[in-house]
Amino acid sequence: MHRTKVRVVEDALDANNTIAHANRADFDRATVKVVNLMSAPGAGKTTLLERVLADGLDGIRPGVLEGDVQGSFDADRLSVLHVPVTQINTDPGFGGECHLDANMVRSALPAVPLDDIDLLVIENVGNLVCPAEFRVGEDARAMVCSVTEGEDKPLKYPLMFRTSELVVVNKADLLPHLDFDLDRFFENLDAVNPGVARMVVSARTGEGVGAFRDWLLEVAAAGE
Amino acid sequence: MHRTKVRVVEDALDANNTIAHANRADFDRATVKVVNLMSAPGAGKTTLLERVLADGLDGIRPGVLEGDVQGSFDADRLSVLHVPVTQINTDPGFGGECHLDANMVRSALPAVPLDDIDLLVIENVGNLVCPAEFRVGEDARAMVCSVTEGEDKPLKYPLMFRTSELVVVNKADLLPHLDFDLDRFFENLDAVNPGVARMVVSARTGEGVGAFRDWLLEVAAAGE
Repeated sequence: MHRTKVRVVEDALDANNTIAHANRADFDRATVKVVNLMSAPGAGKTTLLERVLADGLDGIRPGVLEGDVQGSFDADRLSVLHVPVTQINTDPGFGGECHLDANMVRSALPAVPLDDIDLLVIENVGNLVCPAEFRVGEDARAMVCSVTEGEDKPLKYPLMFRTSELVVVNKADLLPHLDFDLDRFFENLDAVNPGVARMVVSARTGEGVGAFRDWLLEVAAAGE
Repeated sequence: MHRTKVRVVEDALDANNTIAHANRADFDRATVKVVNLMSAPGAGKTTLLERVLADGLDGIRPGVLEGDVQGSFDADRLSVLHVPVTQINTDPGFGGECHLDANMVRSALPAVPLDDIDLLVIENVGNLVCPAEFRVGEDARAMVCSVTEGEDKPLKYPLMFRTSELVVVNKADLLPHLDFDLDRFFENLDAVNPGVARMVVSARTGEGVGAFRDWLLEVAAAGE
């Protein structure tokens, strides 16, 4: 019984990878770089994007693909910045899928103006577990972790922290009001992903957000 | 293709419900009431439980079943309170299951001293989506939502908020440092689950935690 379950899962992940490669090929043809942006619910992905996109990206043309169980709250927030935003809702599946997979992204691609953008940021569903299991054709993964979530999160959700190229520690403005130990968080992070790139920001105040902007520009420029 | 997928999911949920009923029968035989405690990662479920269990429950004997992808950090924190704690790790499945289901709970039951407790609190995996989809045999569902997560969460993760009997708004001590609008949060909550029981607490300072303790005692006493 257990073996059967594992085999089905492997097949599902294989199919996902096949479709992720197809997405990747489409992105390459359009010379679009892609970032898969992940976090727990409410860690501040959208606020971070608002900050970065409002300031512009040095001529790099961004687009956003928004993944949510239901609604288009984040897409509405970002669309006022005159950035092309495409919404995926996952609620038709299984009471709401908790992640984006390659096929969901693929189904949205006809609505994404790939020829008019250079960098696509895919804002995944807020969840520290399953989004990490599904490649969607991205060049790089960034995750946002809020200081309000506690220092133990890398150890409790290791796959997410292990498979990200960048960990953005957000809500730094709240540090004076918390017992959060940043050094211990980084020790836990290094235990699961030694030396991974990291930055401390406050999307609310703007502190440190320039470093995330620079990282996006690096992803956009890679291989050119 | 799509129809096949839906059918498989319905079967999976049917099987889950069958096992949840079996769990429920075991809990009833042992006269144990069960709370399924859910939240996003880092919302403060464990800290809330630490507060409540440290103070005792008026002679009600509690037990805890801890669900985590990996590790036993929360179980270790609670076990010093001399409460029986059983750990379920979900990492053998699919790179880490993002929720507890009835079968996972059932597999842990032989390690739970049902005859020695009156109230079992099941601390689910931190996730606002899938835990809401799986009944595990509980009497009641409580969810914790931190004020740092934003007012939009009931609208973005409606199933979780809709299927909970109690919504605990945690980290109230941070309200002076946030832009969080509690009234708007409650409006959004009422839009998906009108009139659901709610309380505002700070597990960190202890403010309001007595109300959660009283709610647990009510669940424990129901039907007696």
